[in-house]
This record gives sequence, C-alpha cells and structure tokens, in this order.
Amino acid sequence: MLNRLFSIMIFFGIPLVVVGAIFHWSDIPMFFLCCITIIALAGYIGRATESLAIVSGPRVGGLLNATFGNAVELLISIFTLKAGMIGIVLASLTGSVLGNLLLVLGLSFFAGGVKYKRQNFSIHDAKYNSGLLIFAVIVAFVIPEIFSMSMDHAKTLSLSIGIALILIALYMAGLFFKLVTHRGVFASAEQREEEIETPEWTKGKSMLILLLATVAVAFVSEQLVHTFETLGEQFGWTELFIGVIIVAIVGNAAEHASAVAMALKNKMDIAVEIAVGSTLQVAMFVTPVLVLISLLMVEPMALVFTVPELVAMITATLLVINLCNDGESNWFEGLILFAAYVIIGIGFFLL
Amino acid sequence: MLNRLFSIMIFFGIPLVVVGAIFHWSDIPMFFLCCITIIALAGYIGRATESLAIVSGPRVGGLLNATFGNAVELLISIFTLKAGMIGIVLASLTGSVLGNLLLVLGLSFFAGGVKYKRQNFSIHDAKYNSGLLIFAVIVAFVIPEIFSMSMDHAKTLSLSIGIALILIALYMAGLFFKLVTHRGVFASAEQREEEIETPEWTKGKSMLILLLATVAVAFVSEQLVHTFETLGEQFGWTELFIGVIIVAIVGNAAEHASAVAMALKNKMDIAVEIAVGSTLQVAMFVTPVLVLISLLMVEPMALVFTVPELVAMITATLLVINLCNDGESNWFEGLILFAAYVIIGIGFFLL
Amino acid sequence: MLNRLFSIMIFFGIPLVVVGAIFHWSDIPMFFLCCITIIALAGYIGRATESLAIVSGPRVGGLLNATFGNAVELLISIFTLKAGMIGIVLASLTGSVLGNLLLVLGLSFFAGGVKYKRQNFSIHDAKYNSGLLIFAVIVAFVIPEIFSMSMDHAKTLSLSIGIALILIALYMAGLFFKLVTHRGVFASAEQREEEIETPEWTKGKSMLILLLATVAVAFVSEQLVHTFETLGEQFGWTELFIGVIIVAIVGNAAEHASAVAMALKNKMDIAVEIAVGSTLQVAMFVTPVLVLISLLMVEPMALVFTVPELVAMITATLLVINLCNDGESNWFEGLILFAAYVIIGIGFFLL
Repeated sequence: MLNRLFSIMIFFGIPLVVVGAIFHWSDIPMFFLCCITIIALAGYIGRATESLAIVSGPRVGGLLNATFGNAVELLISIFTLKAGMIGIVLASLTGSVLGNLLLVLGLSFFAGGVKYKRQNFSIHDAKYNSGLLIFAVIVAFVIPEIFSMSMDHAKTLSLSIGIALILIALYMAGLFFKLVTHRGVFASAEQREEEIETPEWTKGKSMLILLLATVAVAFVSEQLVHTFETLGEQFGWTELFIGVIIVAIVGNAAEHASAVAMALKNKMDIAVEIAVGSTLQVAMFVTPVLVLISLLMVEPMALVFTVPELVAMITATLLVINLCNDGESNWFEGLILFAAYVIIGIGFFLL
Repeated sequence: MLNRLFSIMIFFGIPLVVVGAIFHWSDIPMFFLCCITIIALAGYIGRATESLAIVSGPRVGGLLNATFGNAVELLISIFTLKAGMIGIVLASLTGSVLGNLLLVLGLSFFAGGVKYKRQNFSIHDAKYNSGLLIFAVIVAFVIPEIFSMSMDHAKTLSLSIGIALILIALYMAGLFFKLVTHRGVFASAEQREEEIETPEWTKGKSMLILLLATVAVAFVSEQLVHTFETLGEQFGWTELFIGVIIVAIVGNAAEHASAVAMALKNKMDIAVEIAVGSTLQVAMFVTPVLVLISLLMVEPMALVFTVPELVAMITATLLVINLCNDGESNWFEGLILFAAYVIIGIGFFLL
Repeated sequence: MLNRLFSIMIFFGIPLVVVGAIFHWSDIPMFFLCCITIIALAGYIGRATESLAIVSGPRVGGLLNATFGNAVELLISIFTLKAGMIGIVLASLTGSVLGNLLLVLGLSFFAGGVKYKRQNFSIHDAKYNSGLLIFAVIVAFVIPEIFSMSMDHAKTLSLSIGIALILIALYMAGLFFKLVTHRGVFASAEQREEEIETPEWTKGKSMLILLLATVAVAFVSEQLVHTFETLGEQFGWTELFIGVIIVAIVGNAAEHASAVAMALKNKMDIAVEIAVGSTLQVAMFVTPVLVLISLLMVEPMALVFTVPELVAMITATLLVINLCNDGESNWFEGLILFAAYVIIGIGFFLL
C-alpha cells in the first residue's frame, strides 16, 4: 500500500521537479513537491538497501546499510553545504539526531505501548548504543564546542578533522565488533536470521534502483535547498527551525514510518535499531564525512554546533539512555520522549 | 507524640500570628513564629490528605495527594509571587527539589542504613522516577535556560508557558499510567493495599481539617513572606540563601519527618516515594502552575532559574539517579547525598 | 623483569639527577632523566605499599594504599605548587583523572578484551565507584566552578576549603564503609584473601624502601618541575598540555603497567580498582589535600579548574560510568575509552 503510494509519488514527482526547475516555479510549491518526492525516493532506497543486505549476508549488508542508510541526508547536506549554508547543515544534523531519538523512538514506544502493555528489546543492543551515543554526543561533539571557545579558526578546524577521523574509525570498529567478533551477543541479529528472509528484489535490480534513486535524490535535493531562503522569509521561520525540524522530518520520514510499523508488530529490537542506529549513523558517520567533504568547498565546516543545538542533543541523549537501559518500553516512556521533542521544537521555533 | 506537639503548636501559633500581624511585631520573632506554625499545619494537611486518600481509593487519592501534597509550598510561593519577589519563588522551588532529593532522601538512607545493613525499594518506581526527573530537570528546565539566552522577554515567556502546559499534562499522564494502565507493576501500591488501612479521620472531618488548615497556611504564609527582607538584612543572608535553604526546609519539614520515620521502619518504598515523588510534584506540578498563575500578576515569572540554581538541580538529579537505579540503599549512599547537600548549601550561603 | 629494569633505572637515574642538578644540565635531557627515574621509583613505592598492606591486614592496608598510592603525584604537585605554577597543578590533577579513567581503563579493557571475549568485574564495586565519581567530579568540582563565577576570591577560597574538608571526610567514610561495615559485599576483597598472599618484602624492609623512595621522588620531582618552562618553549607545548598529558602520564606510569597486566590475567576486579580507585584517590584525597596545603604557600589554590579541564573530566566520568555499570567489558569498550582520550588529548594539545 505505502509502496504503491511511493511509486505514484515518484512517477509524478520527478518529472514535475524537472519541469519546475526549468521554468523556475515559485519556491513554496517547489518546496513541497521536492519534499514529497524525496520521501518517496527514500522509501525506495531503503527497500533496495534491505534487499541487497539480505543477498550479501549480514556483514556486507551492515556496511551497505551504514553507507546508504542515510544517503538522503548526506546528499541533501552536501548540496546545502555547496550552497554555503553551513548553519542549515549543522541544524539538520541536529534535527536528525533529535528526530530519531525523540520523535521516531517516542512514537514507536507510544504506538507499540498502546497495543502491548510492556515491550522488550535487547539489553546488549541498548548498552552498545548508549555507550556510543555518549561517546559521540557528549565527548566528540562537546569537546570541540568548549575547546573552540579559546581557539582560533584554524585550530578549531584541525580539532574537527581529528575528531571526524576518530568518529569514522570508531564507527567502523563498532561494525566489526557487532558483525564479526561479538556477533552472537546481539540477539536481534540472530532473530532475523531465524526467519528465512527472501529479498524483495534481485541483486541486479536492487543495485539499479539504488543507483537511480540516489541520483534522483541528489537532483531533487539541489532544488530543495534553493527554496530554503524564500521559505524562511515567507513563514517567518529561522534557519535553525528549517534545519532542525523541517529538513530533519523530510530526511527521516522513511525511518519514522518503518520504525512505528515494527513497534506495532512488537518487533521492538528492530524499531530501536532503526531509531538509535540511525542516530549513530548520523552522529558518527554522516556528520564527520560532511566535515571532511567540506574541506573541498569554499568554506570548510567545523564540528561546532550552536549552543542550543548541542544542549538539545545532550539532553535528548541523557533522556533516551535513561529510558532505554532496562530493555523495556511502554506508552508513557514514549510520551515522555515525544513531550521532550515538542519542548525542543517550540524552543527552536521561537529562537 | 509528634501529632500532639503539632496540636499545641497550632493552638498557640495561630492566635499569636494574628496578634503579631495586628500589632506589627518585629520581623525576626514573627519569622520563627510563622515557621513553627506552618510546620505544624503541614503535618495536619498531610494527615487529612492521607485519610481522604484511603477513603477515596488509590486513584482519587493519588490525585488528591498530587494537589494537596505540596499545598504549603504552593501557598507560600503564591504570596511571595504576589509580593513581587520572583527570585525567592524560583529559589524556594530549587530548594524544594534539592531538599527532597539530597536532604530528605539522604537522611532516610542514612538513618535506615545505620539500622539495617542494606535496604531495598522497588526498581520499577526508581525507573519511573528517574525518567521523569531527567525529563523535568534536564529537559524542561535546561531548555528555557539555554534558549532564553538568545531570546527577548516575550518569547521567553511564550516558551515558559508552553513548557508549563506540557509539564502539567505529562504529570497527569504519569498519574494515569501509575494508577490506571500499569497499576499492578508498581509493587508499593500493592503492598499498601495488603494492609487493611483504616483512615485516621472520617471523610467529612478530613475535608474540614484540610480546608481550615489550608486557609490558615495561606494566612500565615502571607505574614512569613513579609519578614524575608528584614531577615536578609539582619543575618546577612542573600535572597537566594533564604529561598533555597530556609523556605525550603520550612516548606518540607513534614516530609522530612515522615520519610525518615518510614526508613527506620524499613519501608524504603514509601520513604523514596515521599522524597522523589515530592520532588516530581514540585518540578512538574507546583512550578508550572506557578508560572501560569504568575500571568495574572503584575510581573509574570518565566521558567528561567539562575545558573547556580539550575546547575545544583542537575548535579543533584544525576547523583540521585545514579544512587537509586539499583533499588538498594545503605548508610554511605545517604552520607554521599547529605554531603552533596552541604556543599551546595555552603555555595548558596557564600553566593 | 620489569622490576629488574626499574632497579637499573634507579641505580643510574638518581646519581645522574643529582649531578645534573649540581652542574645545571640543560632542561630537555633533565626532563627525560627525571621522568624515567620517577617512573622507576613509583614502581618501588607501589611494591612497598603492597607488601606493607599484606602484613598489616586489609584495613590498615587500605589506609596505607590510600595515602601512599598517589604519593608520587602528591609530591610532584607540592613542588609545582611551591614554584607558584597553580595552573600546572590543576592540569596534572585533571590529567590524572583523565589518564586513569580513559587511558588506563581503556587499555586494560582493550588488552584484556582482545584475549578474552568478555570479562567481568564486581557490580558492587562499579556501583560504589560510580556514585563517588559523580559526587566528586559532578558535584564537588562543578559547584565551585559555577558558583565562583559570581563570587570574589576570598569567598571562592572559603568554598574551596569547605569542599576540600567534605571530600576528605567522605573519602575516609568510604574506606570505613568498604573495609569495616560492608566488607563482605565487596567480592574482590574476599577473592584476594582466598589466595594466601605472601608479602614480597618484610615489614621493616618495606618501610625503609617506602621512606627512601618517597624522599627520592620528592627530590627528583623538584628538579622535574624546573624543566617545565623550557619544555613548553622548546616544543611549543602549552602549560595545560604539559600538565594534563605529560605530567599525568609520568605520574601514573606504574598504575598503567599493573592495570594492563591484571587485565591480561583476567583479574578485571583489580584492574578496575587500580584505574577507578586511583581516580577517586586523586579526586577525593590528593586534590583536596593540595587545596589545604596551598593555604601555607604564598598563593593559595582554589578548587576551580579551567572550563576545558572540567568539561573533559565530566564527559570522561559520564562515559566511564555508562560503560562500567553492567560489570562487563570487551575490547570495543576499551577502544571507545581510548578514542575519548585521544580526542581530549588533541584538544589540549591545540588549546
């Protein structure tokens, strides 16, 4: 059903975006058109990645997922970076972290918790995730923020590059740990294997779709980015609000839908993995890769968020770790996470 | 015994406060007179609420407790607000949080731990409490603090109102969770039911006492507030110290006594519930209600604490969550909490 | 083997330092000479303390360990203090905390984890340690930092003295808790007793070695401190970097070696005890003692770290508590700790 809707959205969306780009349609309709098309394309990328992951086995599949799982966000961010809007890039990365941790996880806990009294997920996954969350958000993001206050720009950039390399290396080491040396420990991986999974598409078809959809997302993202300025003026939205809330919701729409669907099937392991795993991908892979890519651009991007962005991420991290560390969830925990998202959303709207 | 003492204190206290108010006695004796009378009245309000709670069943009882449990603090704060001393209101709310988390819980752990080697309390309660503590203190109090730094006063106020409404809604949802959908999970509630509790007073008598005592507290609080200015000048105490330490100890004296008494009976579930539950009442109900009430006054109160107040609450929260999350206590954990209270107390005294 | 190497290092090191001091050798070779000699002497102090601890039973042994365990750091710091370099003292205390929590523990987890898939240590110890870590770093260090921002120097000093006394008192109470009232709870203590330990040296020999080595460390430390200024100029190192990284590594070299050795023998209880116990000694004993000693010097030292120092300690504490609270470790957790150390190290290098 959802897949059929996505097909229709893409079938009409891409040609319209092309026409709109050529004839310079006004920015507000273009913004919505781009958003809808990207959401649909993200759905296709997700399915292609999943099919490929099943065919290639969990190890290569994990790597594929790590690379293409946030391909949409990466592409939107690269074009935003190219347009010189560093502020929106950092804001949308913040928004991805907040959206996944508070909104996606919150709605999953809530929706699942209304149906089932208590739901369980792997404590081993929760522990692994919480260690890396603290490392990424509370060590790797906080240190450059605080230290850069008494550094010049060149030193801040050196520190950013160093941290970016360490984040990527540790993310890779984490995959090695999860998929190779300690595979048996992660229950969810085993569970998935028990069901004999059949890929939706063949290897060739998956790769073709992945390629085409990625190219399409890149093209549409570029159009999307150009609408931001008008959007802000028209609706009175700040750059921060567009980045943290709007871009983040568009970029993560596919994850939202599938996490909630999994929670309703009582597969909380997968719902948590989508929400928190996606957060870790953004924090430990997409963000540092963008820092490195930005070195090729006119204005390099340091790993220094604004104070409200960083504080929002820290509070979200502490809240999620506290609620997840027992491997249990219920509707009220979901509501707490959602309430935190609303509070932070109001904050960025008013800022 | 304690109840008899309270009767005597009220019997002499209220007439003396009335006489003192009429003849404008000097502020220092009036301050001590008011404090003693309020402590005794708080004892009566507590007993009346408890009796009513038993008669009305746990659900309505829980609601009653939520509303009248901090009636004294609410009333003192409203009169302080009316006198335009917003700084003292925020300070006394901070003091309630710190006093309950560090002093009440610390003395309970210590007193109980000296008598019993190890004491246990419900892990489910601890988890529920710690999630809400982080939500209230680390999300709902930190966000307006940080975001308001780059906001004008009107926006800060809008953010405060939004957060106040969310806090109250989530507090109500939490009662619904604890008393309706997940009642069986909370062991302490079951335990209490096992003992057939007989209310101390009948329904009618409880309500009459509740009404009279509340009116009396309101009257005495108004007298108390007027002594603050002289008190500060006389003893060299700052507004912050009066609010955080003095008002908080007077406003919570009843809780202190009953929590320690429960710990000595090895009923740690109830001791923790009094200390942490009371903190959550202050943070998620009394504080946001005061923000909303302040809108009717000349000078509205934003949900923005001073930095030392907020930092003290954050550190206290992190310490308590860490010490409580295993559902076990001993005398040394009590001492750690008490030592933290002393450190923070010295800080506010010198500030 | 290592012991023999240490003997040789001392045999040549001490005479050379004496000669160098008399003939005013240049600072760079003197710096390395002093470092090597101190590392070797620290090994001897450690062995003498251990022998004495076995002879005197666990209670007095615990006290001895608490006092002499960080004798080297204490002596270096006193001479640095005497030279008026308060900045380096605070930096090297920070470095001890960071080095023990991130580097020593990280390498132990990693080295042990490469050999054994999963390693376990006492959850009771982990809980005890994490409560005190939060108390020391997040309450006792954060409060003076924040409160001193709106205090004059005299008040900051009063607050520092108060906190120093509370820290020392609580540290002593903790020893009483661990060694007297709740001894049975701490499994590692029992384990050690099971093996009938024979001290390496007799009581008399141990005390003589302890005395001589301590005097020697004091002398060499004084020489070491005088090389810092030249060292900074020569290598372009800041005072902070010398203190946080260089002095800390020299002062803790003995602990590093023995913790990793224990991890490789799968005795994780002892490895964790060395790393975290040593951190607590520095934070709750060495640091406050230095604050009190500094009152006798020309310029007293307030308990106020620089913001980067404090933030680095807070993030390290939160990370370690999160990784340790399940009483399990593996190589990836070690790598996370090590990566955090590298990030913070780069930060201090660039600062």
